[in-house]
Amino acid sequence: MRQIDEDTITQAVIARHAAAGDARLREVMTSLVQHLHAFAREVKLTEAEWAAGLDFIAECARRGGGPRAELALLSDTLGLSTLVQAQQRRARQGTEHSLAGAVTVEAANGQDVAPLIGEPCHVRGRVSSADGRPLPGAEVQIVVPGRSAAHGTSGSTQRTDAEGVFAARVLVPPQQAIAHDGPVGALLDGLGRTPWRPAHLQFVITAPGHERLVTHVFRQGDRHLEADAVFGVRPSLVADWVRHGPGRMPDGHASAVPFTTLEFSFVLNANTTTGDTP
Amino acid sequence: MRQIDEDTITQAVIARHAAAGDARLREVMTSLVQHLHAFAREVKLTEAEWAAGLDFIAECARRGGGPRAELALLSDTLGLSTLVQAQQRRARQGTEHSLAGAVTVEAANGQDVAPLIGEPCHVRGRVSSADGRPLPGAEVQIVVPGRSAAHGTSGSTQRTDAEGVFAARVLVPPQQAIAHDGPVGALLDGLGRTPWRPAHLQFVITAPGHERLVTHVFRQGDRHLEADAVFGVRPSLVADWVRHGPGRMPDGHASAVPFTTLEFSFVLNANTTTGDTP
Repeated sequence: MRQIDEDTITQAVIARHAAAGDARLREVMTSLVQHLHAFAREVKLTEAEWAAGLDFIAECARRGGGPRAELALLSDTLGLSTLVQAQQRRARQGTEHSLAGAVTVEAANGQDVAPLIGEPCHVRGRVSSADGRPLPGAEVQIVVPGRSAAHGTSGSTQRTDAEGVFAARVLVPPQQAIAHDGPVGALLDGLGRTPWRPAHLQFVITAPGHERLVTHVFRQGDRHLEADAVFGVRPSLVADWVRHGPGRMPDGHASAVPFTTLEFSFVLNANTTTGDTP
Repeated sequence: MRQIDEDTITQAVIARHAAAGDARLREVMTSLVQHLHAFAREVKLTEAEWAAGLDFIAECARRGGGPRAELALLSDTLGLSTLVQAQQRRARQGTEHSLAGAVTVEAANGQDVAPLIGEPCHVRGRVSSADGRPLPGAEVQIVVPGRSAAHGTSGSTQRTDAEGVFAARVLVPPQQAIAHDGPVGALLDGLGRTPWRPAHLQFVITAPGHERLVTHVFRQGDRHLEADAVFGVRPSLVADWVRHGPGRMPDGHASAVPFTTLEFSFVLNANTTTGDTP
């Protein structure tokens, strides 16, 4: 009988997967076992650390906000979400995605730091296909993190017109920390990391025959741009948010307080059948 | 601003940990991020697979049997538990440990396949220190997997005598499958793997000034020895279980059915202060 020890265990596990009917599952699990073991060897993980790690994962899974909310936040803060998304979309032309997987986290765990009164922001956007054709009738959902639904200011949904254009008035989003009163927050504290994200609006855009786009638009000059806790910032997603004094907004609304205008063009890729997040 | 993509994300995450006050936490998380990312790159993990993976972990964590029971079972079946244990104990002299971390899993999830009447097994053991000195007064707990506590046959606890010897009559344990009605069982099915473990008795031995020993003793000739679902078998832990016809057992008990005798010597290491599982 062969001795199973720290040198032979990895091959012993992999050898068991030879009979797997699902070739992709075998490929994924073989790679996972190799890298998981390489990690445990590299740091000489102790039994106490192993137990603490399992407890940490269990605590994440038990947190509220949907079945995988805190686990998704963990993945976001460790850069895994960005890596998975970036490599799946490498060859595509359209507007870059940002943290599609984390949508439910922000909705569920986003701290409510909204003042009851905020400065308004007029957003005007154009939605087109990768070939430059405008996309009329696209549904555009704008989520304003940190502005709670309870205040009726969490966002706005509308459709593009015949030229693929939409406009909406929302509140200027604040800079916002990710939920950091749970296990992921404690981990970030231990790592000396900030929980802050730069101010951003989130856009979820759908159009028939096109890939659903989930992305953020960030504000040029925001002091957290280089240190987003969840690595969602892309240079192509940073725009000028122009602040104006009190007066009439582009939609005719008279603002008694300063207001902001923002324009952005979104490009949707044609539908594919690859494994996008449902 | 630097582009964050699948090529740059890993260094971007690691760079954030430079300020961590806890050097060990920084070391562990830096290694974890590198290997986790290497895995996602190697298999080109898709967003759908990422989501399915998080859901799988969440489902494991929500299963009953203690906060980390199913996660520990997952770790066992992927060989991580064995690796962590083996490398922590590499330089030590005593009896090899086996799956200390999984104790609570078996107690909680072990399927009850016990017949109400089983063949008895007389166990005689000797407990000594690594220097050969017998250890009187050591507490020896014998767990018989698959023989439920409800039948009053789940095990036995006693202390060694002045010569470090203990003896007990338990039931012969059956071969036994790990709990496979949960997510880990589904994973094993997908990988074409058997959930079976070879028959074994589990021993938990404690003595003042010595490291707690949690180990298994397996039966020579068991057909699952080479394919233990959780990789707990070590050649040094396989012993002859001698089966006798009906008659008088070593403790004087008259058995009307065939009975088994098993002898084994256990060697405990002196206490250390390394990070053992509490």
